[in-house]
Amino acid sequence: MSLIVQKYGGTSVGTTERIKNVAEKVIRDREAGHDVVVVVSAMSGETNRLLELAREVSDAPAPREQDVLVSTGEQVTIALLSMALIQRGFDARSYTGSQVRLITDSAHGKARIQRIDEERIHNDLEQGRVVVVAGFQGVDEEGNITTLGRGGSDTSAVALAAALGADECQIYTDVDGVYTTDPRVVPDARRLKSITFEEMLEMASQGSKVLQIRSVEFAGKYNVPLRVLSSFEESGEGTLITFEETEMEEARIAGIAFNEDEAQLTINGVPDQPGVAYRILGPISEANIEIDMIVQNVGDEYTDFTFTVHRNDYQKAMDILNEVASDVGAREVKGNTKIVKISLVGVGMRSHAGIASTMFEALAKEGINILMISTSEIKISVVVHEKYKELGVRALHEAFELEKDASVE
Amino acid sequence: MSLIVQKYGGTSVGTTERIKNVAEKVIRDREAGHDVVVVVSAMSGETNRLLELAREVSDAPAPREQDVLVSTGEQVTIALLSMALIQRGFDARSYTGSQVRLITDSAHGKARIQRIDEERIHNDLEQGRVVVVAGFQGVDEEGNITTLGRGGSDTSAVALAAALGADECQIYTDVDGVYTTDPRVVPDARRLKSITFEEMLEMASQGSKVLQIRSVEFAGKYNVPLRVLSSFEESGEGTLITFEETEMEEARIAGIAFNEDEAQLTINGVPDQPGVAYRILGPISEANIEIDMIVQNVGDEYTDFTFTVHRNDYQKAMDILNEVASDVGAREVKGNTKIVKISLVGVGMRSHAGIASTMFEALAKEGINILMISTSEIKISVVVHEKYKELGVRALHEAFELEKDASVE
Repeated sequence: MSLIVQKYGGTSVGTTERIKNVAEKVIRDREAGHDVVVVVSAMSGETNRLLELAREVSDAPAPREQDVLVSTGEQVTIALLSMALIQRGFDARSYTGSQVRLITDSAHGKARIQRIDEERIHNDLEQGRVVVVAGFQGVDEEGNITTLGRGGSDTSAVALAAALGADECQIYTDVDGVYTTDPRVVPDARRLKSITFEEMLEMASQGSKVLQIRSVEFAGKYNVPLRVLSSFEESGEGTLITFEETEMEEARIAGIAFNEDEAQLTINGVPDQPGVAYRILGPISEANIEIDMIVQNVGDEYTDFTFTVHRNDYQKAMDILNEVASDVGAREVKGNTKIVKISLVGVGMRSHAGIASTMFEALAKEGINILMISTSEIKISVVVHEKYKELGVRALHEAFELEKDASVE
Repeated sequence: MSLIVQKYGGTSVGTTERIKNVAEKVIRDREAGHDVVVVVSAMSGETNRLLELAREVSDAPAPREQDVLVSTGEQVTIALLSMALIQRGFDARSYTGSQVRLITDSAHGKARIQRIDEERIHNDLEQGRVVVVAGFQGVDEEGNITTLGRGGSDTSAVALAAALGADECQIYTDVDGVYTTDPRVVPDARRLKSITFEEMLEMASQGSKVLQIRSVEFAGKYNVPLRVLSSFEESGEGTLITFEETEMEEARIAGIAFNEDEAQLTINGVPDQPGVAYRILGPISEANIEIDMIVQNVGDEYTDFTFTVHRNDYQKAMDILNEVASDVGAREVKGNTKIVKISLVGVGMRSHAGIASTMFEALAKEGINILMISTSEIKISVVVHEKYKELGVRALHEAFELEKDASVE
């Protein structure tokens, strides 16, 4: 017998029929002897409906009141799921974030969890109850309702799992796990049985939007085993996110992520002198523009910088860069929005040479020109023209034989 | 400057447009220098929508969870109204029943208020804030969400007014006050500028459903001046419910109430002996059937009983009465569902004779046969055939000149 925290997102509880299905899943785990704590989101569409009401009464809804408003979404779901469980003869009890004393700071709309009073939940579990907790919401020290920001239900679940010392935190979603890459691009992309925490972070931040990054970080911090599962499939083990690398195979590559949301900026022929990187990139950061990849080539006296920003920030960054260019006496400024970043992610890179060269060879074979390269301990990213997205991802998936199970388990 | 507690019902906050109108009304009172605490219901239709969701997941929704569910209705309204006030530049703050520590017992769905922690509200008022409180809901000692039952928002408002020592509790509704009788029956029925608490209780319980009886009782208990007003009219003073009779005119009649929901049962020829009333009416009460009017005529050795029950309980009461009849050796049992009870209500009856005879005379003039008479200190009720409802009410309204203002102020 173990203690499991399960989280079901908005689509999984989108109708009363689906809520009854969730109840059945919970019951199966109860009947298998597990203690179950369930965290749920608002029924899909509900949060938007509430926000639309807010817009009808106010151009800029007061953040404290918006949290009071949208937190009703999860409150409806916890009540309905508890009713469905009780109807099936299983004792259940719902709790809002406030009732379960999920204490956050007072940053309405993006609050951070500070602590949870887990005693009440433990008492309920001891009495054989299923505990159903509203995700995405908490309460500050003064009793004001707060929300963790969109998608924050994942974080609620992980935080509860950590506070309760749960054996596993299961995130039920509309995908059945983490894949070696997007199956829409590579049809024989394979579901990973496990992925390390660091790989997951890289895969998620690269656009494989399975989980909220914050919740994965949280799970890592508190060492909570996290599993991604489908709420629409009867069975399936999903993907387990691990924090150890003990059972690693050689040359383990977890998968290929890609991101089409970036744009590239280049400043060439900058007279090289100490502090020049700061003079160029400082003003970009000060404008609150997040810089992703940075590459610098130093030649004789002159240096070139290339970096990427989110495509939405491209024009603003370009305007700043043009100003900076005349200040520092650069030769030229160039930009490119038609790019895609493709990343190979895997902890196996740490101990294995030759992975980068295999990657570059595979791309070269297809005639794909690499515009930018950046590496980290468990990731190699390349920027290529966006037209090569499918071709590049497929070539790499094949080169590293990711469709085969053997390389992963 | 005074402290006003205002309550707006579901129809008054039925759309975001109407919520903005409520905000304007509140602002007018703020600008007149008053401190305002607003109690709101769920937007009309919302509670039913939520109950329908509950029915979709459970035949018999768990009461604790149903309270968690339906209490979201008012929570949405408090947030929207606060946003609308803030948008207009007025500081406002919303509170759920739980946040304002409106402590009730644990009778889910029909909880009774035990106390309110008014300190937080006073603090907000001192800081110039409008305080917006969710009606209809509270929290028990263990932190479970409770609801006061349908229409309980009136009670919330009165309880808050009592706890805060408010100068007036204003109940905004879709009628603009209490009338001498139902204007649909008597077109020149007149709005009363004031009515005593006891008269109001009689009028409300007789079917003039302006206010929840419980809220009026509550107001009486704590001596809270209560005013009924229309939320759809720009101005208007509504009707003030008073607790003193100092300014009473002679022969004051407040109005005429009627009730078509009752049915009459008669048991004739019961051998008279001590305890026979209990033997007849006891089994009815034990079946949880509420008895309204009771009339007993005692003859030589034999006695007749006539009483009324709610029409929904008629068949059940009749079955019980037939059983009882054979036990006590009664001659016959009769029933009549085609009745209406018409009541004349007014504190003036206490000190004035002749009112009953004026009443009976007016009905006799119209050829209306009285089936049953019952009197209390401030009320005379008659039961007549239901076909005489309009004729009887109009005849009495005219006989007591209720359309004229002079008799009332």
